[in-house]
Amino acid sequence: MQDSLLTAAASVVSQLAAIVGEKYAFADPQEMAPYLVEWRGLYRGKALCVVRPGSTDEVSRVLALCNAQGWKVIPQGGNTGLVGGQVPHESGDEIVLSLTRLDRVREVDPLSDTMVVEAGVTLLRAQEAAQAADRLFPLSLASEGTCTIGGNLGSNAGGTAVLAYGNARDLVLGLEVVLADGRVWHGLGKLRKDNTGYDLKNLFIGAEGTLGVVTAAVLKLFPRPRQMVTALCGLPTPAAALALLGRAKAAAGNGLTTFELVPRLGIEMSVNYMGCRDPLERPYPWYVLIELSSARDEALDGALEEILGAAMEAGEVEDAAIATSLDQRNALWKLRETLSEAQGFEGGSIKHDIALPIATIPQFIAETNAALEQAMPGCRPLPFGHLGDGNLHFNVTQPVGMEKAAYMAQWDAINRVVHGLTARYGGSISAEHGIGRLKRHLLAEVKDPVALEMMRAIKSTLDPKGILNPGKVL
Amino acid sequence: MQDSLLTAAASVVSQLAAIVGEKYAFADPQEMAPYLVEWRGLYRGKALCVVRPGSTDEVSRVLALCNAQGWKVIPQGGNTGLVGGQVPHESGDEIVLSLTRLDRVREVDPLSDTMVVEAGVTLLRAQEAAQAADRLFPLSLASEGTCTIGGNLGSNAGGTAVLAYGNARDLVLGLEVVLADGRVWHGLGKLRKDNTGYDLKNLFIGAEGTLGVVTAAVLKLFPRPRQMVTALCGLPTPAAALALLGRAKAAAGNGLTTFELVPRLGIEMSVNYMGCRDPLERPYPWYVLIELSSARDEALDGALEEILGAAMEAGEVEDAAIATSLDQRNALWKLRETLSEAQGFEGGSIKHDIALPIATIPQFIAETNAALEQAMPGCRPLPFGHLGDGNLHFNVTQPVGMEKAAYMAQWDAINRVVHGLTARYGGSISAEHGIGRLKRHLLAEVKDPVALEMMRAIKSTLDPKGILNPGKVL
Repeated sequence: MQDSLLTAAASVVSQLAAIVGEKYAFADPQEMAPYLVEWRGLYRGKALCVVRPGSTDEVSRVLALCNAQGWKVIPQGGNTGLVGGQVPHESGDEIVLSLTRLDRVREVDPLSDTMVVEAGVTLLRAQEAAQAADRLFPLSLASEGTCTIGGNLGSNAGGTAVLAYGNARDLVLGLEVVLADGRVWHGLGKLRKDNTGYDLKNLFIGAEGTLGVVTAAVLKLFPRPRQMVTALCGLPTPAAALALLGRAKAAAGNGLTTFELVPRLGIEMSVNYMGCRDPLERPYPWYVLIELSSARDEALDGALEEILGAAMEAGEVEDAAIATSLDQRNALWKLRETLSEAQGFEGGSIKHDIALPIATIPQFIAETNAALEQAMPGCRPLPFGHLGDGNLHFNVTQPVGMEKAAYMAQWDAINRVVHGLTARYGGSISAEHGIGRLKRHLLAEVKDPVALEMMRAIKSTLDPKGILNPGKVL
Repeated sequence: MQDSLLTAAASVVSQLAAIVGEKYAFADPQEMAPYLVEWRGLYRGKALCVVRPGSTDEVSRVLALCNAQGWKVIPQGGNTGLVGGQVPHESGDEIVLSLTRLDRVREVDPLSDTMVVEAGVTLLRAQEAAQAADRLFPLSLASEGTCTIGGNLGSNAGGTAVLAYGNARDLVLGLEVVLADGRVWHGLGKLRKDNTGYDLKNLFIGAEGTLGVVTAAVLKLFPRPRQMVTALCGLPTPAAALALLGRAKAAAGNGLTTFELVPRLGIEMSVNYMGCRDPLERPYPWYVLIELSSARDEALDGALEEILGAAMEAGEVEDAAIATSLDQRNALWKLRETLSEAQGFEGGSIKHDIALPIATIPQFIAETNAALEQAMPGCRPLPFGHLGDGNLHFNVTQPVGMEKAAYMAQWDAINRVVHGLTARYGGSISAEHGIGRLKRHLLAEVKDPVALEMMRAIKSTLDPKGILNPGKVL
């Protein structure tokens, strides 16, 4: 580190320590290390120091100081983000503001079906707090043991329960937010309906810490499901999967809680590398993991059989395995859940997190697969994911036998094919992971110019000095 | 009208007519009359003229001109709003921008469960377009034959289906909006998930036309319910109603689509004045109208009996009438739906549209009723409405025998009692109707000051000349 930065760090640390205590403002490289690296090693940043306030008031005083001094601040939760939004740049002149000490579940109110949690509470602890009150907090992600509610809201996290319960955004009733200049917005309302002025909370949700720092939230709770029925189906085409989706929605309405698409290649990977069992007697080109849930015991008896029976008659489904025990259910889910990890065993994988108008997905897959084959003969597209939400993780595995590094060097070229077609189909290049650093350069290409102008105007209004997570999103 | 305004009007009309055509820009008092009066006669405004653009492009050119000239613009849909947000002031220097000619259903896409409608489409036509595609658009209000989607979104309308489907805000996937200066934001995405930057659409929804003019929207569609079961229950207390709500949510989850509370006084009014039948053998202090819906035929067989049986055993419900035919269902709903009109027959009614944390409602009702009796002995509180959403229309009927005018003169005093306690309980003084003109003076009293500062900053950013619906909301 340059001497000038070292001197600066010492002064910054002592001013921050005066607010949060000596223990919680530090510039020691070893102590800072875990806060500076993106968990997959995609980004390795530097920082002036790390500050860990222990209360909303301390966050407020930290930001007031940073804003007055023009110090740049990188809000961070569990540091599990997938687009580099939570790590500092390499410049070394930024301060990591870790929210993990704000870790209280302030209240659980089962009668109102709400709970108030602080930003640093992990998603798992939030789920457990709900469960202890016989309620469900439905947000569920692979990283739930580590990721925090603050990060979930900053990134408007998605996950596996969006089809029935919505994104993180849809699970929030109120927020407490510290603005760039230290002002605190006390917006922890527990109300389902409140038309007293502009909707401010949705501005901060999904803003990736660029507009303000969420310190606490009122979250919605739901009845815990009593019955779940699960099946894995073999299908001939994505169009058949779409027909099955329509059929399942018509028959089960909000009871349809999972509808995940996986191509044969994905099943093979999970079988070959992750110890999963091939679920059906013979292979099918496509698979759907479908689950229905109900708050009433026995309400779903026969429901899945009815839907799948009709779908088989219509030629949409060719075979299906219905789980008859929790073990069987877990085995079916494992096929889907291990899929991301399994891809690593087949060499390089170039990843996309796209959303599309649901009706266009079969045509989109066909056209994109063809365009990819033309761009790189032998590459293996693996479009899988939350078909019920129109969200595909359209990953592309390298051709057999190609060198991984040579393949990964084509990241941008493959991206251009998938994102270009996504834009043409009216889709999104980031369905649930956000923009962060990873996709910032793509935003101008895909976003409506007036939307971008509004985003910049709002950023300047709420953070005029640009201290909050600079160089992320915008 | 003053001469100067008359001259101004002639020039304004001719400039606007150059954009929309002669027929659609007018200042003739008779032609303007229906656009200037709030439908209950609560506000009677004046205007320079009325302009009725026929396309998004015309709206854009009209606003560009108005913004350049500094002319004030009052966006208006079906003119059914309840807080005066849609009518011009008495000054006569404002232009009414009627959106009713933007009345195309641009697309219905049942596979994606979306439809694209223009702002001037009435809610009823939107519902019918969904139904023609075998889908449900669940927003439902008393004024649905007249009110428009643009107005519904501007006011974030609520209604009777919020418990299961959310407010208008929750039913929108994308928006097309003309900004104050005429720029058009093309945000008509059909995506369920899109994390590419700030959430802009929720800023315009509920902003009552003060931040931009919504010209079209992508709306969510749902499966049509195949089975509905309905009952009216007699209960001893609001606490019993709350216990029944918890029980019904636990048992039916998202299948619980209606949960409306009515006190005995309300049932008496509907029976005495609206031709309704007293539904139970003897009177009970409180009533709940409960309905479950399912996308599956027969899925609800026995469900309501089970819930109500357990509730009776627990002493929450004392008697219940379960509808066994569509006629019986309609008769039960009529008790609830005629309630607003019925109140008129008992003299003056001072109205409130409040929301509360659901768990606090029994205590809130007890305390507020006591405070009202103290403020005006003999007044008759009628707290009824969407208990499942925490939204009460806490209307207060005049004492028997009092003169109506003398009672209505106490509007502010009664408001103060109800709104004061609402604020103390962490509630909202406008759950679903908005702020408009009616409650503008109350906003500073109940709103977090930082929230107000942010609202003002955003208003200045998006409408720097303040031409859009000035003097409303803020």
